[in-house]
Amino acid sequence: DKPLVVIAGPCALESRAHALEVSAALKEIAAGLGLGLIYKTSFDKANRTAANSPRGIGMELGLPIMAEVREATGLPVLTDVHDAGQCKPVGEVVDVLQIPAFLSRQTDLLLAAGETGRAVNVKKGQFLAPWDMKNVVAKIASTGNHNVLQCERGASFGYNTLVSDMRALPIMAANGYPVVFDATHSVQQPGGQGTTSGGERQYVPVLARAAVAVGVAAVFIETHPDPDKAPSDGPNMVPLRQLPALLAELMEFDRLAKARPVA
Amino acid sequence: DKPLVVIAGPCALESRAHALEVSAALKEIAAGLGLGLIYKTSFDKANRTAANSPRGIGMELGLPIMAEVREATGLPVLTDVHDAGQCKPVGEVVDVLQIPAFLSRQTDLLLAAGETGRAVNVKKGQFLAPWDMKNVVAKIASTGNHNVLQCERGASFGYNTLVSDMRALPIMAANGYPVVFDATHSVQQPGGQGTTSGGERQYVPVLARAAVAVGVAAVFIETHPDPDKAPSDGPNMVPLRQLPALLAELMEFDRLAKARPVA
Amino acid sequence: DKPLVVIAGPCALESRAHALEVSAALKEIAAGLGLGLIYKTSFDKANRTAANSPRGIGMELGLPIMAEVREATGLPVLTDVHDAGQCKPVGEVVDVLQIPAFLSRQTDLLLAAGETGRAVNVKKGQFLAPWDMKNVVAKIASTGNHNVLQCERGASFGYNTLVSDMRALPIMAANGYPVVFDATHSVQQPGGQGTTSGGERQYVPVLARAAVAVGVAAVFIETHPDPDKAPSDGPNMVPLRQLPALLAELMEFDRLAKARPVA
Amino acid sequence: DKPLVVIAGPCALESRAHALEVSAALKEIAAGLGLGLIYKTSFDKANRTAANSPRGIGMELGLPIMAEVREATGLPVLTDVHDAGQCKPVGEVVDVLQIPAFLSRQTDLLLAAGETGRAVNVKKGQFLAPWDMKNVVAKIASTGNHNVLQCERGASFGYNTLVSDMRALPIMAANGYPVVFDATHSVQQPGGQGTTSGGERQYVPVLARAAVAVGVAAVFIETHPDPDKAPSDGPNMVPLRQLPALLAELMEFDRLAKARPVA
Repeated sequence: DKPLVVIAGPCALESRAHALEVSAALKEIAAGLGLGLIYKTSFDKANRTAANSPRGIGMELGLPIMAEVREATGLPVLTDVHDAGQCKPVGEVVDVLQIPAFLSRQTDLLLAAGETGRAVNVKKGQFLAPWDMKNVVAKIASTGNHNVLQCERGASFGYNTLVSDMRALPIMAANGYPVVFDATHSVQQPGGQGTTSGGERQYVPVLARAAVAVGVAAVFIETHPDPDKAPSDGPNMVPLRQLPALLAELMEFDRLAKARPVA
Repeated sequence: DKPLVVIAGPCALESRAHALEVSAALKEIAAGLGLGLIYKTSFDKANRTAANSPRGIGMELGLPIMAEVREATGLPVLTDVHDAGQCKPVGEVVDVLQIPAFLSRQTDLLLAAGETGRAVNVKKGQFLAPWDMKNVVAKIASTGNHNVLQCERGASFGYNTLVSDMRALPIMAANGYPVVFDATHSVQQPGGQGTTSGGERQYVPVLARAAVAVGVAAVFIETHPDPDKAPSDGPNMVPLRQLPALLAELMEFDRLAKARPVA
Repeated sequence: DKPLVVIAGPCALESRAHALEVSAALKEIAAGLGLGLIYKTSFDKANRTAANSPRGIGMELGLPIMAEVREATGLPVLTDVHDAGQCKPVGEVVDVLQIPAFLSRQTDLLLAAGETGRAVNVKKGQFLAPWDMKNVVAKIASTGNHNVLQCERGASFGYNTLVSDMRALPIMAANGYPVVFDATHSVQQPGGQGTTSGGERQYVPVLARAAVAVGVAAVFIETHPDPDKAPSDGPNMVPLRQLPALLAELMEFDRLAKARPVA
Repeated sequence: DKPLVVIAGPCALESRAHALEVSAALKEIAAGLGLGLIYKTSFDKANRTAANSPRGIGMELGLPIMAEVREATGLPVLTDVHDAGQCKPVGEVVDVLQIPAFLSRQTDLLLAAGETGRAVNVKKGQFLAPWDMKNVVAKIASTGNHNVLQCERGASFGYNTLVSDMRALPIMAANGYPVVFDATHSVQQPGGQGTTSGGERQYVPVLARAAVAVGVAAVFIETHPDPDKAPSDGPNMVPLRQLPALLAELMEFDRLAKARPVA
């Protein structure tokens, strides 16, 4: 199997300068480690816990910045889409369209994403069983686009808590598409701080390592130079300075896991 | 408190003839019982389990039929919207816009629904805690529209199962907006039949009665002349011929509950 | 069906004087309401969250007090047993032996309780599905004792939280033995205060009412003259002075539910 | 940190001959791998799903066989105890007393096990949060015995399903006692076959590997020469012939995990 890839970046596209700075830093980290990296960023946080939370820079301002990041760094770029109409313009700029977990059953969005011909990373809804993803990826594949990634990001477990079921990884892999483990949102505490979501950053390495040992194509880890000042997902983003050591460890586990695939 | 209202109708708008027939039957049932009834129907099943499940008649064909049902029966009509762009045209026809549970955190949709000035019935996501609904209804109310209904429809409980937490009813009521209990989708087994959702119709009266005894403004019960032939949600719809007796019982529990509100 | 019975009393047997006082008060309440009441008390809290929590008066001191309560008030008495050896001596004194939820799968305990010939109230484990209780009650019935009560007291729902699934009531009733709803422990937050369990007393009437409307043989409600000073389960016990009004309401819902049994 | 240890053996002590045969085979496997192994066996299955399931050989017949296994193989032996009275006689024979998950809150049993001075492996109840184990181990440690192991074996997740939360491993490790991951019972489907528990053996290597990568002191894996003929837990036991390869892989992951401890 192919070596581990990382999908990394800040939760939100904060500004052109911030995007260029963080993507350059990530490119350097990836190059230093010999690791494939996809730059993740979002132009809109369309489902914030509360109405007055910052939404983001928007698609019109965001896409040219993503194009610039792509050109400046040579990194492939991933961003999320929230309605069918966004898929075409976004697909003209980025390499990977991402379907948010809450929207993983919205047929029109899945079809429109598939029709771009771009890779599509679809997150498993918190309300779905691993075997339910077969139907989700089939919707995308029905467009003739088989460049699909399936992303585990936790299942609802009581209130304001998610749990990561590692059995989901081989169950989804059996669908025939690569599996991504989102270590950032798996440690989210949805709505857990009243008007924002909480998170437990300290468990990102724990869950990422477990998933990599089981065997995944990629890990998804949001990172930020100063997470506590980030506009969203601060509590579960990994500080940028801690990322190289974390990734190096995950690469070691990946080499072992790929040499010894789970039967 | 005001007497119980029922939101009832078939899951999908199957055809003009079917809609006129079922709505006329429901109007007669409601009149016979002296019960307020809102007719529920859907022009699109936008998040079916599988891509090849029937989607529905569509907005353009559906809205004129809803207008005709409204005029023919005098019943208020409720239908669900799936993206922000649908809210304005739908709001010009129906009385209540409904936000699907999976979409209960999509800010743009909530705002667009609120801005129609119509009543908005927002379903609680299967991934939300009852106290999370405070933020959801605040998004709608931020448009100046306070005609909001909050709908309980079950919380994720392990895989392919929902559970109805009756504590959610008073917790949501404390937000200051009426609470609806959706007895039909609370007994759904999401994805539980492989490529379709299963359901346990026999528990509709059980959960509806429990919720009415606790105290709700309305119950939501999907019904069909022949559920096993319905294009969606057949396993959890109540046969139309059983509806009058069920509603009569719920009205008795409602009278007692309204006379003896939970402290 | 027979009218609702209530199982009530303080969580722990605190002292002879306390037991005689509370049981006399409960007898008076029950007589005033025309309600059947079983007095609940415990001589040992055998599974406290922490080792240094008070355990209780013990079996040797407790049983004579229970006998005295029984004689003084004429009320039947229920208490819980924690190992097979306790069943015989306890069964010589009380009317109902109760199996704690954590112990609901311990075969020897179930058999020993059954062999006393006394009524046995077995709580459904927080880790059991409603349909699992068929096997539990069959263990007791295998002794030839069919005087069995099945008690719903919540299912594990994420961490430190329970949820009451009202569907469990008819599912268990189908086993052919009366169903009890424990409203006190269903609102427990197990381990939720670090070294003790928390609880949400305000939801006792909510869940009790829902269960009674669905239809149960009995409700189980722990009560105390001053819950906040009680040695255990204080946060979820109902103050004794609020009990009469709560029971009166539940009796009204019971009359309606028994007149209109769920199909 | 010390290298991984495995706790392995058949679920039940079936007979003297079976015990001597399996323990000899396990000793050879462990010696071949240079792996520390504790032999697990049970003289009583005290909480079978149904009353007519086989219980086991019993304590009186079982203990001499365990002593013989210990002497013949030189392996330390672990067995489970079900009431306080069993602790002393069992502690005179075996090296590790195990507290079953359902009994993890029974104070008397925990104290009696602690008082033997033997190592105590206490399973985390399916109804407990990881942080609740602090109180459980404190009960044992209150006897002055600090030779305590904490065992993760899954948490209730909906009905008839368990989920393994890998965050539980570092949370429990913070209590200061070694952590064991029970890969066999974590894949159990409690009560999932009506009158017996089901299981998904194929996920034993998945979950074991994830846990070892996170970092544990030991893994617990039940094994049997012919699991489908075993009297209990057949569906989740690993065939003996597959064990050496599985253990060899886990040892590789353990070496990496111990060299790179999670921060």
